[in-house]
Amino acid sequence: MSGEDAPAQQQNAEEQKQPQQQETKTPAESPKTESKPDPPPTSASTEAAAATAADADTPAPAAEKAPEEDTFSYRALVLTGYGGYDKVKLQVKKGKPALKSGEVMVRVKMCGLNFADLMARQGLYDRLPSPPVSPGMECSGIIEAVGEDVTDRKVGDKVLVLNRSGLWQEVVVVATTHTFLMPEGMSFEEAAALPVNYITAYMMLFDFGHLRPNQSILVHMAAGGVGIAATQLCKTVNDVTVFGTASASKHEVISQGGVTHPIDYRTRDYVEEIRKISPKGLDIVLDPLGGSDTHKGYNLLKPMGKLISYGAANMLAGQKKNLFAVAKTWYQQFSVHTLSLIQGNRSVCGFHLGYLDSESELIAQAMAVIMDLYKQGKIKPRIDSTYHLEQVGDAMRRMQERHNIGKIILTTEPMKEEEKKEEAKKDEEKKKDDKKKDDKKKEDKKKDEAKKEEKKEEKKKEETKKDDKKPEEKKEEAKKEEN
Amino acid sequence: MSGEDAPAQQQNAEEQKQPQQQETKTPAESPKTESKPDPPPTSASTEAAAATAADADTPAPAAEKAPEEDTFSYRALVLTGYGGYDKVKLQVKKGKPALKSGEVMVRVKMCGLNFADLMARQGLYDRLPSPPVSPGMECSGIIEAVGEDVTDRKVGDKVLVLNRSGLWQEVVVVATTHTFLMPEGMSFEEAAALPVNYITAYMMLFDFGHLRPNQSILVHMAAGGVGIAATQLCKTVNDVTVFGTASASKHEVISQGGVTHPIDYRTRDYVEEIRKISPKGLDIVLDPLGGSDTHKGYNLLKPMGKLISYGAANMLAGQKKNLFAVAKTWYQQFSVHTLSLIQGNRSVCGFHLGYLDSESELIAQAMAVIMDLYKQGKIKPRIDSTYHLEQVGDAMRRMQERHNIGKIILTTEPMKEEEKKEEAKKDEEKKKDDKKKDDKKKEDKKKDEAKKEEKKEEKKKEETKKDDKKPEEKKEEAKKEEN
Repeated sequence: MSGEDAPAQQQNAEEQKQPQQQETKTPAESPKTESKPDPPPTSASTEAAAATAADADTPAPAAEKAPEEDTFSYRALVLTGYGGYDKVKLQVKKGKPALKSGEVMVRVKMCGLNFADLMARQGLYDRLPSPPVSPGMECSGIIEAVGEDVTDRKVGDKVLVLNRSGLWQEVVVVATTHTFLMPEGMSFEEAAALPVNYITAYMMLFDFGHLRPNQSILVHMAAGGVGIAATQLCKTVNDVTVFGTASASKHEVISQGGVTHPIDYRTRDYVEEIRKISPKGLDIVLDPLGGSDTHKGYNLLKPMGKLISYGAANMLAGQKKNLFAVAKTWYQQFSVHTLSLIQGNRSVCGFHLGYLDSESELIAQAMAVIMDLYKQGKIKPRIDSTYHLEQVGDAMRRMQERHNIGKIILTTEPMKEEEKKEEAKKDEEKKKDDKKKDDKKKEDKKKDEAKKEEKKEEKKKEETKKDDKKPEEKKEEAKKEEN
Repeated sequence: MSGEDAPAQQQNAEEQKQPQQQETKTPAESPKTESKPDPPPTSASTEAAAATAADADTPAPAAEKAPEEDTFSYRALVLTGYGGYDKVKLQVKKGKPALKSGEVMVRVKMCGLNFADLMARQGLYDRLPSPPVSPGMECSGIIEAVGEDVTDRKVGDKVLVLNRSGLWQEVVVVATTHTFLMPEGMSFEEAAALPVNYITAYMMLFDFGHLRPNQSILVHMAAGGVGIAATQLCKTVNDVTVFGTASASKHEVISQGGVTHPIDYRTRDYVEEIRKISPKGLDIVLDPLGGSDTHKGYNLLKPMGKLISYGAANMLAGQKKNLFAVAKTWYQQFSVHTLSLIQGNRSVCGFHLGYLDSESELIAQAMAVIMDLYKQGKIKPRIDSTYHLEQVGDAMRRMQERHNIGKIILTTEPMKEEEKKEEAKKDEEKKKDDKKKDDKKKEDKKKDEAKKEEKKEEKKKEETKKDDKKPEEKKEEAKKEEN
């Protein structure tokens, strides 16, 4: 809630001072940080990934002080391999990333957390390059250097950034077309919360969905980032009825945010609840879940209704890849025949911003409208919580266990010493907790197997009994036949 | 072309006189008409179908002269069974259809011909009730009587009518919500040409398609009714690039109508032609063909592109149901997985007005915009040709063989005697022609079968030779093994 509650102007003033402070920080300040001797200096821009500061063939045009290139270092979150929350580690990268024509270097203030990052950690998101790699699709910060031919951005500009990956770092290099100027009064937290969720919700609702007054819509995970963005955007159209699924504890907040009918999907059948209120069905279903929920969504559509599938959150079960959940979601994945669409007058759409990263023009158009709505006060990202880079595991856990209401943000501001000590204690406890959970799971599994074995044994015994009986029965039957 | 070329006002004045004239006509005027002794009096409204004029429980409120009910008769086209063009017969129905609350009786002037009517004749359109039944989804005419509680229509109103079926008759009874007032200056031919094609094109382009300036679109059968409507509607948006398929002889007309790039699908690969001009692909594909063309359309889509399937014209091959064409189109019918849609950021939609007939509000909204565009001179139905009811076979043949540019219309105005005689001669020739074609087909089939038999024989002989060789080979192999 920090970003929303703080007075915006004061916050911005503080934040503007920070880039200078941060430049003087060394990685040694952070005991949790893994300081690798010579990590490859990577940048968010894949083209720039191969270019190191030492590479004489590609001089960095914006690097004014040559010696700085050697001493330049920055912290970065790195996915070291697929798996649990601990696979994302905080590391220090050395060497100033080279800037190519049309690129800018951004000193990052805040980063946004998305479902795709959780999928990526488990190896379920093919748009993230193979580990080791920095995740992160959105951030906000201040331009620190501009490459050749960059005329629309200057050093000191406050921007929000949208990129395929690589933005969970203190310093990122991206094409200028991937940056958008922050409007007056927007906090860095809001700026980091905005791109992925609002562009996703906007393009789904207004391009694929063609949302109009008096229509009805189902928003799953209505307390999540896209859910809240979609609800706010629905409110920009007159008399739209929003059905929103979320656990009961979140209903008050999402109702205030614009959800007409909150539904607790844990205790209620949402299809039944919707049919009670809208017997004819819905105009739009936004489906981030996949699997059997896509079928339900399709069957809820009115004539001219649109189902928009934008994820497979049902694949996520537990912190590590759950092959059963993946297989089940995949197996139940929806497929449709055009003749069925024709007879129902229906539309099925698929959306994922991660596969749209080369469509700068489309994204810029959507962003322009979104910024305008922000300036008019019609939308405002809701920040759930802000974590330090060191706490990325906790941040991911909060999102995956669906405790958040709104956006989860990572801040590049380093933790204070006392916070770190507390964090270390908590970490120990959590690890113990996780171990206990794992042990319990293993024990349960053993018990289950033991039970199964018992049952098998019993079955065998029963069958043996039956077999024993059978010859007698056969004899009787034989007798009958003889008679 | 008659409707477009005639001065609209003069034509309307003439047409307004006609209802009185027509009431005095008797079926005996038409020698071609089958006068059945006691046909069941059906009406376009399915609810009214069971109500006869003699039914004392449901008195017809608008029937002013009681004796007229017995003498009342009107000509109607009736599909007598599934099959070729001759299955649609002109019959005379007797008895004045009863009017229920909310219904109106319309004296029909002109009827529109649609692809669904061709499919229906072959038994390929499940929205038409079983034969015997009157086909026809659209017509124009003059209100002759209004039922109870009808306040928005009065006797003498010129209307266009949209209905699930039953409009190819001189007199129809429909719910008032299925009628729309004709604007000033619109001819009856235009009015009959407008509903199905323009509502279809409008809802596809602007609801499912979300067509915007600078986009690109593929319109198949660009010289057909929907094709021309879609092209005209595309022109109401700035800088839309329209690719249109049609045979070369129609290119001049469709270019003048607004098609940017006409493509002769008979001599060119339209996918290649489009890729040459739009390497990135298209924003919208309108697909009335089905089968393999749907796959091609899907693969032509840009990110955020929409494929809108609205028919399976590929199923139509020849005047009778071609099981091979049906099976092939069905087998090749497109089906898509949501994960493929997500990764491509694509949308697949199905549209058919015939399955939307209960959505009066949606249709009324679309019709209001279309009427407005007509009044502004931005759209104007193009009439290809007008046929008498007696010539419905020729009309269907023209459409099915794709000779038309624009809409084919049926007029209820009876043929003159000399025209009928000429028609009868032509009919004889056509039947001979069709017989020759059929005979040739049969002969070709026989030849084919004879060839196949020959080949089989040859194959058998060869196989027998091989078999003869085999024992020797086996012996040799056995010898080798022994060695």
